[in-house]
Amino acid sequence: MGKSSSKGLSEGGFKMFSLKNVLMLSIALNVGLLLNHFGLKDGILQNKVGATVAQNSSRSCFSNCTVVEEIENGGGGEKKRQELAADSVVNLDHLKHLIMFSNLKCEHSGDPTMFEPFWRKMGDRSTIVIPGWQSMSYFSDIGNLCWFLEPDFAKEIRRLHKLVGNAITEDRYIVVGTGSTQLFQAVLYALSPPDATDPVDVVSAMPYYSSYPSVTDYLKSGLYRWGGDAYTYNKEGAYIELVTSPNNPDGHTRESVVNLGGGTRVYDLAYYWPQYTPITSNVDHDLMLFTVSKSTGHAGTRIGWALVKDKEVAKRMTKFIELNTIGVSKDSQLRAAKILRTLSDSCEHMVTSDHSECFFEYGRLLMTRRWEQLRDAVRRSGMFSLPEFLPDFCKYTGVATAPHPAFAWLKCEGEVQDCESFLRSHKILTRSGMHFGADPKYVRVSMLDRNDTFKLFVERLLSINS
Amino acid sequence: MGKSSSKGLSEGGFKMFSLKNVLMLSIALNVGLLLNHFGLKDGILQNKVGATVAQNSSRSCFSNCTVVEEIENGGGGEKKRQELAADSVVNLDHLKHLIMFSNLKCEHSGDPTMFEPFWRKMGDRSTIVIPGWQSMSYFSDIGNLCWFLEPDFAKEIRRLHKLVGNAITEDRYIVVGTGSTQLFQAVLYALSPPDATDPVDVVSAMPYYSSYPSVTDYLKSGLYRWGGDAYTYNKEGAYIELVTSPNNPDGHTRESVVNLGGGTRVYDLAYYWPQYTPITSNVDHDLMLFTVSKSTGHAGTRIGWALVKDKEVAKRMTKFIELNTIGVSKDSQLRAAKILRTLSDSCEHMVTSDHSECFFEYGRLLMTRRWEQLRDAVRRSGMFSLPEFLPDFCKYTGVATAPHPAFAWLKCEGEVQDCESFLRSHKILTRSGMHFGADPKYVRVSMLDRNDTFKLFVERLLSINS
Repeated sequence: MGKSSSKGLSEGGFKMFSLKNVLMLSIALNVGLLLNHFGLKDGILQNKVGATVAQNSSRSCFSNCTVVEEIENGGGGEKKRQELAADSVVNLDHLKHLIMFSNLKCEHSGDPTMFEPFWRKMGDRSTIVIPGWQSMSYFSDIGNLCWFLEPDFAKEIRRLHKLVGNAITEDRYIVVGTGSTQLFQAVLYALSPPDATDPVDVVSAMPYYSSYPSVTDYLKSGLYRWGGDAYTYNKEGAYIELVTSPNNPDGHTRESVVNLGGGTRVYDLAYYWPQYTPITSNVDHDLMLFTVSKSTGHAGTRIGWALVKDKEVAKRMTKFIELNTIGVSKDSQLRAAKILRTLSDSCEHMVTSDHSECFFEYGRLLMTRRWEQLRDAVRRSGMFSLPEFLPDFCKYTGVATAPHPAFAWLKCEGEVQDCESFLRSHKILTRSGMHFGADPKYVRVSMLDRNDTFKLFVERLLSINS
Repeated sequence: MGKSSSKGLSEGGFKMFSLKNVLMLSIALNVGLLLNHFGLKDGILQNKVGATVAQNSSRSCFSNCTVVEEIENGGGGEKKRQELAADSVVNLDHLKHLIMFSNLKCEHSGDPTMFEPFWRKMGDRSTIVIPGWQSMSYFSDIGNLCWFLEPDFAKEIRRLHKLVGNAITEDRYIVVGTGSTQLFQAVLYALSPPDATDPVDVVSAMPYYSSYPSVTDYLKSGLYRWGGDAYTYNKEGAYIELVTSPNNPDGHTRESVVNLGGGTRVYDLAYYWPQYTPITSNVDHDLMLFTVSKSTGHAGTRIGWALVKDKEVAKRMTKFIELNTIGVSKDSQLRAAKILRTLSDSCEHMVTSDHSECFFEYGRLLMTRRWEQLRDAVRRSGMFSLPEFLPDFCKYTGVATAPHPAFAWLKCEGEVQDCESFLRSHKILTRSGMHFGADPKYVRVSMLDRNDTFKLFVERLLSINS
C-alpha cells in the first residue's frame, strides 16, 4: 500500500469485490466534485478567509508540526503575535527560547484543526447559544448514575454510535469526562482495588500512546502504576491492559496481547471512526473510551465519553470525576451535543442523498489525500518509510477502504539513528519514538493539523530529499 | 448579631459611624425598590416562570437542601420526572432508594442556583454564542505560560479583581482550572517535592471544607497526604496549609494558624466576594484560589482560577492540568469571560448610578434577607444556634456590613447529639459536622439554593419548633 497510496482512491488490492465495490468506485468518481465543494484543490484546502486563518494557524499548532518557528516567535507574547499576524512572513530566526516549552506541550499533540473548514461550512447548524441564566447548577441529570451527564449529549452519543455502527451502546452506562484523558484516570481509579497493598500494573503494547506512562505515574498513586510494554508483561496478580485501536502512534488495529488471569482490558477507541479506518465491526467491549477531539475535531471542548458495561465500574468512574473536578463542563457538553447532532444529521441519509455534506466522507477524503501526499514524498525520498495497511471492508461506507490514521509513524531508514533530531534540523518538529516505548529511528507526525501546516511539512520533507 | 439580624438592614452595632454610613443608610432605604426591581417580595423571590423553575428545582438541588423528596422521586428516571413536573405536588412518599446516592453528591454542595434570576434579568447581555468552527484547538494562548487560558477570560479576571479590590493581580500568573477543585490538586502537585521520600502533609484548621481530606487522599498519592486539623499540627518538615477565608463551612474570616518552618500557605478565597462578606483588604498572598461557581453562581461551567506569584509554581500547576485533563474547556472559559464582563459592567458605575443592576448588590441584599429569615427561625426555635459575625467596613461598598456566608453552620443545642439525623427526620437534608472535622452537633446548610428550596427549609425549621 505504501507506493500505491500515491496513486489515488481507486487502487489498493481489496480483499473482496462485490456490488458494494461498484458503489465505492462510484464514490471515488465523486471525489473531484466533493473536493470542489469543500474548496479543495490538488488536495490543498483553499483558504477563503486568508488572514484570519493564517493568524489562527500561527497561534494554534506546534505539536508534531512543521511551523515551529511561527509559534516560537509567538512565544514573545501578544506584541510578537501581532507583529507576526501583520507580517505573515514566516520568520526563521529567533527559534530558541520556546523549544523546551513547546516540547512539553508536544506530548499532547494531534491538534485536530484540519476539520475546521467543514464546521465553517455547516454555519449556524452547529452554533450553540447559551443564555447567562442556563446551566448554572452542578447537576445535569439527577436520576442518572452519572449525575453530571447532560441528557441531550447522552442521546446524541447513542445516536451517532448507532449510525456509524462502531460500538454497542445498549445496556451500557455513559460516563462523560473532561476529555478521554480524565476518563482514562477514572478507569484506573475504578479498576484498582482500594485496599490492595500494591498498586495495580497498567500496561500497553509497544508502541503505546506517549501520555499513558506519565498520566499513570505523575501523582505516584498507591492504587496504580505504569507497568510498561504489554508484550513483555508476565507478572502475577491484577493488571490493567490498555488496548488502543486504531493505535496511537502507528495506526494499526489492535487486540489485547496479555493473556494472564486477573487482567482487565480498557479499549481506547478514540480513532475508531470512518475518517481514519474502516469500521469492521460493532464492538462490544466492557470498557470503551471515545473523545470529541478525534471524532469531530473539537479538542478545545475537552469532552470524552466512556461506554461502561459494569454498573459498579461506572459508579466508581463517576466518583473519580466528582472528586477530580466535581463533574464536567455543561457548556461543553451542550456544545458537543449540538456538534454530534449536526454530524449525524449530515451523514444520516448518506447512502441515498448527496454525500458532500457528510462529515465522515469529508474527513475520509481529506485523510486519503494527505496520506497520498505523504506517501508520495516518502517514496521520492528513499530515506523514510511508513507503516503499510491492507484495506478492509467498512460496514459503515459499504466499501473496502484502507486506514488513513491520524498519525504517521515515520521511520528514518539508513544511517539516521535519531529521527526526531534529524527532522528538527530540517525544521520539522515531531515526537521521538522513544516516548512511545519504541526506537528513536521512529517519530510520530500529526496528520490532523491545519492545511497550511501539513502542506509545509510535506514541502520540507521533499526538500530534504532534493 | 443573632437577634438583630431579623430586624432589618439598618441595625447591627457598627464599629464606626461616618459619612459613608449615611450612604449605607441611603442604600438601605433603596432596598424596597431593589427587591421590587428583581421581583423580590417579603424576601421571597416571586417565580415569574412558575412551571419551568419548579421543574428545574426538582432536578437540580438536593445537597444540603430541604426538598430531598422531589429529587429522590426524580431518581426514578425521566418518566418519574415528567410525572413530577406535570404534578408539581411534593410527593412525600417514595423517599428511600436515592438516599445513599444523594449523600454521595451532597459532599459538593452549595449549588449556587439562587443567582439564576439575576442572570435572567441580564438577558442577552450574558448570552454566549459559539459557532461550530470556533475554539477547536487544544491551545488558547501559546505565548502564555498557561497555554490553555483564554486571553479574554484572563482580561476579565483582572478587571473584576480591580473593580472589587479583593485581590492583587499585578505580577501574578493566572492559571485556569476545571473548577477550583482541580486547581487545589494542581497546587498540591506543584508544591510537593517530586523526589521526597514521604508525602507532604496537607492541613487545614477545623472545621475545614469536607472535600479537602477526600480530594487529597483518593488516589493515595506518594506526593501528598491529608494531615488533619491545622490547630493541632506539630510535625517537622514540609507541609501545606489551606486557609479558607471566608471559611467553608462556618463563614469566619481566617488567617494561617500553623507557625512552623517549611510550610506553604494556600488561600482558598472562593467566598471572598461582596455578596458574602465585607471586602476589608486587597489581599496579596502568593497563592490564591477563586471560582466562578461562587463568585457569579455558574457552578455548571466548572471554571476556577488561581493567582500565583511564583513562576515555577504556576508552571507546575499548568503541567498538572495538562496531565490531568489537557487543559480546560474553552467553551466554559469563553462563557465565564462573558459572565464576568456582564458582572463588571453591571457594577462598574455603582457609586454614581442606579445600584439595582449590580450583581453584588443584588446578591448582598438577597443573602441579607435569607440570613434574617434563618436567624429569625433559629431564634424562635430555641433549639439551634448560628455563628455570630461582627460587621466590618467594606472597602468595595464603602459601608460597614456583616458577613452573610454562603453556608449556615447550624448547631443543635440541648439534647440532640446528631444534628444531621435529627434534621433528616424532619425532612431537612444537611451535612454533618463530622465531615468537617467537627462535632456532630453541627451541620452545614447551603444558603445558595433556589428560593423555593430555601423557603421550604425555613418553613420546616419553623415547624420543628411549633
